[in-house]
Amino acid sequence: MNKSNLELVRECDSFPYYEDNRAVYTENLKKYHAFRVNGYDDTLGYILNSVVEKWPWPKEHWVIDSAAQTVTLTTPADATPEYRSQVVAESIAAAVKVDAFEVLRGWRNEKYPVYGPGGEFLLDMERYGAHMTCYVEDATGLKFWIPRRSKNKQTYPSMLDNTVAGGMCTNEKPFECIVREGVEEASLPESISRATIVARGCVTYSHIRDARAGGEIGLSQPEVEYVYDMKLDPSLIPLPGDNEVEEFNLLTVEEVREALARGEFKPNCAVVIIDFFIRHGLLTAENEPDFLDILSRLHRRLPYPLASH
Amino acid sequence: MNKSNLELVRECDSFPYYEDNRAVYTENLKKYHAFRVNGYDDTLGYILNSVVEKWPWPKEHWVIDSAAQTVTLTTPADATPEYRSQVVAESIAAAVKVDAFEVLRGWRNEKYPVYGPGGEFLLDMERYGAHMTCYVEDATGLKFWIPRRSKNKQTYPSMLDNTVAGGMCTNEKPFECIVREGVEEASLPESISRATIVARGCVTYSHIRDARAGGEIGLSQPEVEYVYDMKLDPSLIPLPGDNEVEEFNLLTVEEVREALARGEFKPNCAVVIIDFFIRHGLLTAENEPDFLDILSRLHRRLPYPLASH
Repeated sequence: MNKSNLELVRECDSFPYYEDNRAVYTENLKKYHAFRVNGYDDTLGYILNSVVEKWPWPKEHWVIDSAAQTVTLTTPADATPEYRSQVVAESIAAAVKVDAFEVLRGWRNEKYPVYGPGGEFLLDMERYGAHMTCYVEDATGLKFWIPRRSKNKQTYPSMLDNTVAGGMCTNEKPFECIVREGVEEASLPESISRATIVARGCVTYSHIRDARAGGEIGLSQPEVEYVYDMKLDPSLIPLPGDNEVEEFNLLTVEEVREALARGEFKPNCAVVIIDFFIRHGLLTAENEPDFLDILSRLHRRLPYPLASH
Repeated sequence: MNKSNLELVRECDSFPYYEDNRAVYTENLKKYHAFRVNGYDDTLGYILNSVVEKWPWPKEHWVIDSAAQTVTLTTPADATPEYRSQVVAESIAAAVKVDAFEVLRGWRNEKYPVYGPGGEFLLDMERYGAHMTCYVEDATGLKFWIPRRSKNKQTYPSMLDNTVAGGMCTNEKPFECIVREGVEEASLPESISRATIVARGCVTYSHIRDARAGGEIGLSQPEVEYVYDMKLDPSLIPLPGDNEVEEFNLLTVEEVREALARGEFKPNCAVVIIDFFIRHGLLTAENEPDFLDILSRLHRRLPYPLASH
């Protein structure tokens, strides 16, 4: 009944690995069209075939190749990122209007960057985020400030989350993102955040969305989440700053472990907690049978061009 | 002239990636025979063709398939690990006697475990290690206890190293390994080590040995190094406990950065330092252009069955 840590990691990093099983990998790829941008050889993401079929693709900007299973944005090779983004935004707006896509209901029109093979900015899309674990430490050990997501959230309602988490806006640096989200989501004073937050690396994974995400099932969502720790003075209590969070609770290590095993955490928040546990010596080669598999899956090498901030 | 952090990581994680360039990957694989054990489908490692040719392979225990480029240990599928290890040890002893292999001169006869696809112990070979960074912290920041390897070491003489590092013996747990090596290499009192050392995960990489390693060039050496931090009281000074280390010096972050850039660190010790810098917020998405590539390469998913301790 209880989920192992590896099961939690696999739920987040759920896109098959070529080297594990070529047949499974190839079978899975058949469900998607590769997203490409004219002028670049790289696959920038995968779009579910059923989405490609229903999507309104204006012919002046898009070419669908059903045999090769590609969707190509045909903007000129030397188009500006702004122009590409505008074309994509117009396409999304048209799709929102059609109202054929569950995942677009309540579309927030937030923009996130997509990068080319040389790290150059190509267009806006969703890919990068920042997650922070706030904790207090006393003689009894560590305790974690864990929020419960609002039951009205479109995605993963009522699930447990990392203390602060959010998507990085275009042109935003990861550290600035986490400071901003700290103010918005947890009412953490900016000056304290700037002095206390420590960058701890990142987790990368390739997720296939399931029913808990809301919206279409099977959407491919490869992500980079920059990871931060913040040790809080016990007197500083995170408070919901917007309507995204129901409440914050201070949980012991054991309580967090139990909530993880019960599957209460949003999948990518579970892996950020597992990464914290590994970095702080709470999860070790001696007490976690799947230690090595977990560590490499938390840092998956994504087959897409990635940002350099 | 100076080496970037990504160059240092690539020097350590130097075995090509299939997904980066299939032609380069395939061309590289042609240089090796796959090492297999009768009864298991998995490739357990890669042996350089020139080594396979010169190696004395007693026909009763080994089959060389030059077309498939495999070396198979033909012990019965239900052989004990002890028996397999004995056969391998006899083969190595015979090769040492022939004296045709530079890398075997000064062979220390240390034994390390190899695991099967279910994590079961198959035989003894070299793969797992533990590395520890000892540091002190004061108002001016962090300082690191960095040893210089003895100029008489067979491998990487006179290069800089992590404070404590060593290979894990068969049946040894990673934490016990680092405590033991701490006593042997740095005279760190066992009781203080047990109370102070914190497990921080591991780095995994697939290395191709170059001239600095001593011995044959091109040997494939995939490794798992468990990573530990130990914050030392300034009064506790590491002292060489054996003849492996020339001296310990206390270096600032800047001095370590410069030594890294000059290529003074042993390749796999450089990546352990880079991992420390990332985990402690010294290397971030904002100051390291190759941040994401470095992070995933430090946690390469190795295509061999791995241990569960």
